[in-house]
Amino acid sequence: MSEQIEPKTEKGKGQKMWGGRFAAGPGALMQAINVSIGFDQRLADQDIAGSKAHSDMLAKQGIITPADRDAIHGGLDDIKAEIDAGTFPFSNDLEDIHLNIEARLKDKIGDAGGRLHTGRSRNDQVATDFRLWTRDHLDLFGIQLTALIEALVTQAEAHADTIMPGFTHLQSAQPVTFGHHMLAYAEMFARDRSRFADARKRMNESPLGAAALAGTPYNIDRDMTAKALGFDRPMANSLDAVSARDFALEALAAATICATHLSRLSEEIVIWTSAQFRFISLSDAFTTGSSIMPQKRNPDAAELVRAKVGRILGALTSLAVVMKGLPLAYSKDMQEDKEPVFDAFDALELGLAAMAGMVADMTPNKDRLADAAGAAFSTATDLADWLVMNLNMPFRDAHHVTGTIVALAEAQGKTLDALSLKDMQSVEARITNDIYSVLTPLASATSRTSYGGTAPNNVRHQVARWKAELD
Amino acid sequence: MSEQIEPKTEKGKGQKMWGGRFAAGPGALMQAINVSIGFDQRLADQDIAGSKAHSDMLAKQGIITPADRDAIHGGLDDIKAEIDAGTFPFSNDLEDIHLNIEARLKDKIGDAGGRLHTGRSRNDQVATDFRLWTRDHLDLFGIQLTALIEALVTQAEAHADTIMPGFTHLQSAQPVTFGHHMLAYAEMFARDRSRFADARKRMNESPLGAAALAGTPYNIDRDMTAKALGFDRPMANSLDAVSARDFALEALAAATICATHLSRLSEEIVIWTSAQFRFISLSDAFTTGSSIMPQKRNPDAAELVRAKVGRILGALTSLAVVMKGLPLAYSKDMQEDKEPVFDAFDALELGLAAMAGMVADMTPNKDRLADAAGAAFSTATDLADWLVMNLNMPFRDAHHVTGTIVALAEAQGKTLDALSLKDMQSVEARITNDIYSVLTPLASATSRTSYGGTAPNNVRHQVARWKAELD
Amino acid sequence: MSEQIEPKTEKGKGQKMWGGRFAAGPGALMQAINVSIGFDQRLADQDIAGSKAHSDMLAKQGIITPADRDAIHGGLDDIKAEIDAGTFPFSNDLEDIHLNIEARLKDKIGDAGGRLHTGRSRNDQVATDFRLWTRDHLDLFGIQLTALIEALVTQAEAHADTIMPGFTHLQSAQPVTFGHHMLAYAEMFARDRSRFADARKRMNESPLGAAALAGTPYNIDRDMTAKALGFDRPMANSLDAVSARDFALEALAAATICATHLSRLSEEIVIWTSAQFRFISLSDAFTTGSSIMPQKRNPDAAELVRAKVGRILGALTSLAVVMKGLPLAYSKDMQEDKEPVFDAFDALELGLAAMAGMVADMTPNKDRLADAAGAAFSTATDLADWLVMNLNMPFRDAHHVTGTIVALAEAQGKTLDALSLKDMQSVEARITNDIYSVLTPLASATSRTSYGGTAPNNVRHQVARWKAELD
Amino acid sequence: MSEQIEPKTEKGKGQKMWGGRFAAGPGALMQAINVSIGFDQRLADQDIAGSKAHSDMLAKQGIITPADRDAIHGGLDDIKAEIDAGTFPFSNDLEDIHLNIEARLKDKIGDAGGRLHTGRSRNDQVATDFRLWTRDHLDLFGIQLTALIEALVTQAEAHADTIMPGFTHLQSAQPVTFGHHMLAYAEMFARDRSRFADARKRMNESPLGAAALAGTPYNIDRDMTAKALGFDRPMANSLDAVSARDFALEALAAATICATHLSRLSEEIVIWTSAQFRFISLSDAFTTGSSIMPQKRNPDAAELVRAKVGRILGALTSLAVVMKGLPLAYSKDMQEDKEPVFDAFDALELGLAAMAGMVADMTPNKDRLADAAGAAFSTATDLADWLVMNLNMPFRDAHHVTGTIVALAEAQGKTLDALSLKDMQSVEARITNDIYSVLTPLASATSRTSYGGTAPNNVRHQVARWKAELD
Repeated sequence: MSEQIEPKTEKGKGQKMWGGRFAAGPGALMQAINVSIGFDQRLADQDIAGSKAHSDMLAKQGIITPADRDAIHGGLDDIKAEIDAGTFPFSNDLEDIHLNIEARLKDKIGDAGGRLHTGRSRNDQVATDFRLWTRDHLDLFGIQLTALIEALVTQAEAHADTIMPGFTHLQSAQPVTFGHHMLAYAEMFARDRSRFADARKRMNESPLGAAALAGTPYNIDRDMTAKALGFDRPMANSLDAVSARDFALEALAAATICATHLSRLSEEIVIWTSAQFRFISLSDAFTTGSSIMPQKRNPDAAELVRAKVGRILGALTSLAVVMKGLPLAYSKDMQEDKEPVFDAFDALELGLAAMAGMVADMTPNKDRLADAAGAAFSTATDLADWLVMNLNMPFRDAHHVTGTIVALAEAQGKTLDALSLKDMQSVEARITNDIYSVLTPLASATSRTSYGGTAPNNVRHQVARWKAELD
Repeated sequence: MSEQIEPKTEKGKGQKMWGGRFAAGPGALMQAINVSIGFDQRLADQDIAGSKAHSDMLAKQGIITPADRDAIHGGLDDIKAEIDAGTFPFSNDLEDIHLNIEARLKDKIGDAGGRLHTGRSRNDQVATDFRLWTRDHLDLFGIQLTALIEALVTQAEAHADTIMPGFTHLQSAQPVTFGHHMLAYAEMFARDRSRFADARKRMNESPLGAAALAGTPYNIDRDMTAKALGFDRPMANSLDAVSARDFALEALAAATICATHLSRLSEEIVIWTSAQFRFISLSDAFTTGSSIMPQKRNPDAAELVRAKVGRILGALTSLAVVMKGLPLAYSKDMQEDKEPVFDAFDALELGLAAMAGMVADMTPNKDRLADAAGAAFSTATDLADWLVMNLNMPFRDAHHVTGTIVALAEAQGKTLDALSLKDMQSVEARITNDIYSVLTPLASATSRTSYGGTAPNNVRHQVARWKAELD
Repeated sequence: MSEQIEPKTEKGKGQKMWGGRFAAGPGALMQAINVSIGFDQRLADQDIAGSKAHSDMLAKQGIITPADRDAIHGGLDDIKAEIDAGTFPFSNDLEDIHLNIEARLKDKIGDAGGRLHTGRSRNDQVATDFRLWTRDHLDLFGIQLTALIEALVTQAEAHADTIMPGFTHLQSAQPVTFGHHMLAYAEMFARDRSRFADARKRMNESPLGAAALAGTPYNIDRDMTAKALGFDRPMANSLDAVSARDFALEALAAATICATHLSRLSEEIVIWTSAQFRFISLSDAFTTGSSIMPQKRNPDAAELVRAKVGRILGALTSLAVVMKGLPLAYSKDMQEDKEPVFDAFDALELGLAAMAGMVADMTPNKDRLADAAGAAFSTATDLADWLVMNLNMPFRDAHHVTGTIVALAEAQGKTLDALSLKDMQSVEARITNDIYSVLTPLASATSRTSYGGTAPNNVRHQVARWKAELD
Repeated sequence: MSEQIEPKTEKGKGQKMWGGRFAAGPGALMQAINVSIGFDQRLADQDIAGSKAHSDMLAKQGIITPADRDAIHGGLDDIKAEIDAGTFPFSNDLEDIHLNIEARLKDKIGDAGGRLHTGRSRNDQVATDFRLWTRDHLDLFGIQLTALIEALVTQAEAHADTIMPGFTHLQSAQPVTFGHHMLAYAEMFARDRSRFADARKRMNESPLGAAALAGTPYNIDRDMTAKALGFDRPMANSLDAVSARDFALEALAAATICATHLSRLSEEIVIWTSAQFRFISLSDAFTTGSSIMPQKRNPDAAELVRAKVGRILGALTSLAVVMKGLPLAYSKDMQEDKEPVFDAFDALELGLAAMAGMVADMTPNKDRLADAAGAAFSTATDLADWLVMNLNMPFRDAHHVTGTIVALAEAQGKTLDALSLKDMQSVEARITNDIYSVLTPLASATSRTSYGGTAPNNVRHQVARWKAELD
């Protein structure tokens, strides 16, 4: 049976609704301008958590009674249950998630609900909710990136000595190993993970209790609420607490950078799965086929992941433009802060999940990779290096000799390692049989033992390092 | 009674749903990657219109029977009625709006539904739908911009001689009229309107019949479908027809530029309504108040409109990044083309409606404006110009004399027009009583009669020009 | 002999210089903030042309004497000669190109130089110069795009029936012709050209005479200066004339869209020249080689052109952000308007020149293209269409039969056109020998005769249309 | 005497030169495409430092002789002296800074110069140079941000109890202190500083020795060169070492966020220095005046700093777009990586210096600030809070009573603290004289003693914390 979905997105609905109302006059316009419940309902869990922490603190400080606190907690639990069950009566007239919950709470528990708002305002409340939501997602990305790195390391381990061409300009330059290539991405994604971790650490301060903008005369305990919500400390300046959105910009920037990495690997997957490359294959799980063209496997997942960097950079641009030139403390412009983050983070979550899946799924085509690695005299550099190292030839001379030998091989239609020793000696008499130890792609890769180089043993050492770290 | 809204946006739902499914494996991921019905259902009307035009043509060309054509039309009418009534069973399993409608049509009319797809593919179908939707909105923006220009012209007419300071660097520079200031924006928004019109003209070509990418062997009549859908002609190259998204980029670029204009006027409204400026007032219709601070009128609408340029530039960035480096013809990346346009256009529609409303609503505070216009010796340039024009004084000398006179006025704590003739003559003996004809802000503005200048009669002439054009 | 270049870019110099001076106090800072001569000297020709037009008009209106006008023209001619010869003494102390030229003119001709500034100000002067410069480049892009289209049409004519795979998802989908593919880009670049033409038309109004912001009391003739400078008319509102930068944003937007097209074709060139594709080859003129890897041809030009969209979109972003929320009329922020345009336009000029060169230079590898076009059962759709058209089979059934036949071919390791008629009839008895008329890639392409389709004759007709238009 | 500058920027020159050459054919184009010496000469110091470290290591490892090492060092010292003296013969024919220096070195010291390149390539060399340059600037921004924070803290200390309006929506909301407002920015800039520090830490790894992309067979010691250049360690993967540009993206993102903060404070300065606000004054050092309008002080510096966020976000956009979808390892696209960073960092350096100067320079106008703080019944919230805290009134009732009292004050044209006790008691009999302890702006601010609140003593405590940290 086909799963049914809602007949219109809320947005679509709103849009249509406003369309009609705009004609009806400014009232409809101002509602459209003020209403955010269509998107900020995603903050419901955070809003409830914040209200619980705040009411606990108010009770402890004697600002509300324990009975009020208990009523508030009970009411909020009911509300959360309603939201989870999809029965909560969200209302556009109540504008946002905060007023929707507050009004519902008053309906349920009466005056005690009104006392919840003592010593806070919507400004610090929304800042708190949004930070909590963002923090949760930064944590999620950390977990997803770890899974992605694990998938890369698993491939690297399996293919520590699978030879492939190392490209510059999409042209074969020097042989590398497939494992080494995988680990290059592991490095990138590990830096992404570290960026999210830094962002999380920097933003993990509580705005709650900053009130509208100036703090409050009530004897509140901001350390207590900060701790209850998992924040490291309360923010030190109330104006900053309600005005700052750099935490969201930083999160979007880290997401954008991560998305460029995803787009690079996606592009490689798209190219590698083309019929012309066939470097890897992906299973049906990550491709879509054509019922009448059975060999066609469209790398839809890789393509969509590649595209996501657009949406995420767009979100960063959006919010940076919104914040440009905004005076303190709160302006309505800042209502535009959440949607770009929601949208970008949904995109990144999907992209990371899809990429981890694809990396785990892909099967390198060893023969194609090896053939490609051996083409284009890709070990010419190795030949030149051998001359320098073994014959103490100046680099420039070695380069010249190499060029002559390559031309000879080309004339004979042979790869370098298939050229006879005699032929090579005709160019440079001192060349010995040892030269063949560097002329195959595998030999070339194996020789690159400098730290960070592509030699299979290096790759295995790096795999071991990663596995130790990931444990 | 409070209006009720859906318990979750579709997006939110999807996101939550995927979250769970991602863990469940690649199937959920690929569905999340492939599904676009959550947003592309906004193309339902366009999809149905396209299918009607296509089936009419197929029948006329003898590719399907008249009976099939009639069945298709009847089925599509039913489907449209269902969608309008909110009873259409949208399904994620059917991925997008095209397959949802196609499947429903087959349910309703059987095999004839299957024949509808002869000689077209999803690639040209989605390109057609998206162009139609975009075209409708370009037309809407034209209408909205005209309404906004009318509101500006109405204010300009009423305030052709209302003096206000012309600012540079937010510092009073020379007196202008409020009407002149309004007409500056009329010029900007008229260019925006012209940009949308150009974009509409350029994009008004039909992709329908390009099929998957190469055209079709069926004897279709693309001119007929193009005409039926209001397109000027069919697109001349099938690869281009399914690959091009420059029409969407251009529409977003025009929207971005228009949004910068909206942001500039919004910024002025925010500043002008501050307690310190009080240049204009807005009614309750476009401000929000504070129940305990009765004088506080927050210009929420102006602030939100100011912010919208972020979202719109972000959408343009998004799509440009998606399209960067995409090979022909269709890649999955292009599924990311519609949401930025939908989102940006909703924002612009709201912004234009709100701005037209605010402009009509605002009341200039003539006294404050006049006072501000007269401050800071804002007619010093006029004094210097008088010296040049009447005494044939070299500009540099006139400048020096003016500086001395202004210093004198400053020392006496007077404005320039309040300084005695004797005092002025003590600096330059040839100054006559005529000097006072340029020293008040009104005189200054009135003197600027060069074409495009701020003189009230100029403003009136421009108002007349606008009114003639708008009729 | 090696060409010598300046030891530091001006920018580098400035930066180093400021670095030192910043420590020295605010004077150095303010100079760094105010100086624009490092980049706006590119407006020298436009500034001189504007001054000549303005002084001609002042003389005609009797505001300056004919002798002054002649002196001004003579002085400006000398200055232009100095600038062209590289002997003009540009000075940071004089901040910008306008003051540099004005001061030099006064040095040369004395007081008459001072009278040049009557009835204008730096605000309308810079707006005029910048429009003229931008207009020149919009014209240049028109010429360059025409050259690029010509190169594409030439290739299309030569390869109207050169078969290649039409890709979706970088997977072979249906055969097309190389000529058809070239013409898809001709369509895109023609729209780009039309966008630049529209932008040029819209922006071709003269700000000159708007003076600081309010117009002027002098009896100037703005129509005369507008005409002299090739503008269609003077701008109708003085505030708009000095405040508007939408012309620059529109030019940047058109450049960005054009750059996405360049990036798409560049990406194809990079992929097509890879050893795995070898669809085309480029000569040494547009590739760089490796002295020891003779087969390596790096498509550097295509890669750099692909990248340029970053810089151009970045410039558009820059200027849109600068203009966001700027009140009228002039703010210092607007000094940031020119560099993004200069930089983006240099990039586009290079990109267009390089792309026209590459298109003319590239040689399709017909054998590789044909082989690729025939792979992956790329004519399966044609088989299904044959069944529908000739056997009147419902589309769904035709699809099923096709799938079975393809599976048969796959099992036999054959392409569709190599499968025996008997084998095909074993699946569907009514299939006749005529089936082979659609099963080869060439037959497939040739059958797609719908308007805009890839049939070689269609391509030839389009080539003829283009040639007629380009003549 | 007027300082002379170069007659054309290198860029301008190049552009003109290419313009001519483009017509002359592909040779000129390819040179234009390949040449980067016009901008990458800014890496000269870093390139020389890298070469010294590399040659030291080669000598220590026995790959080159000590004599060669000494010759290389001597030659590089000479070259550095030439560059510093402006006598180095930069050449476009040698493309980039690396080849320019390498060729010059060979001219000076012969074959030893050629041996310098053993075990490295241009790919790791440019990555190393660019990282070093970027790192230096991250350090510089740290220093500049500290200076800016110090300036803010100094103002905060001086104005811990200077009352001003706290704004929401640019409307007075609640009184705060000027010192508190300054410290809000100190918090933001401290987070910026911490972002730069994190970026520096993450990017401080050495690519040197990764060679072209695969590592090298020479027995190099990458730890030694890393240490010599101040890197924490060598990068662990050679492909990553030459391909990664996330360090530059992260640096640009941190710069963008910092620039949004600068733009916010700049906007406030522009508004605060307007004649209508007059909240602060800036000296001549950071404003420009008008010789004939002596009261006009244009906040040019603040405006230019406000605009810089455009350029910096544009640079980030640029580079993100360049990197989107780039396969490993090196593509020519990456030549576009440096200019956006150079340009953005120059802008940020100037912006930070100017802002530190302006903050130190500005003088709050205490009377204007106090008057503004007392307007609009800005202490109404305090009255309501007093009722809640002292009369144990429910919040909703307190709100209602406050509204009634404010209406009374408004009717009498009085501020709240000027209303008689009797009048207040006529609304709520239990109000006592103690109410006046919260009704003045100073009392209001003083009451907000919650952590992070605006009470003067809080501000003083925060100042002390900052001073301790800055010491």
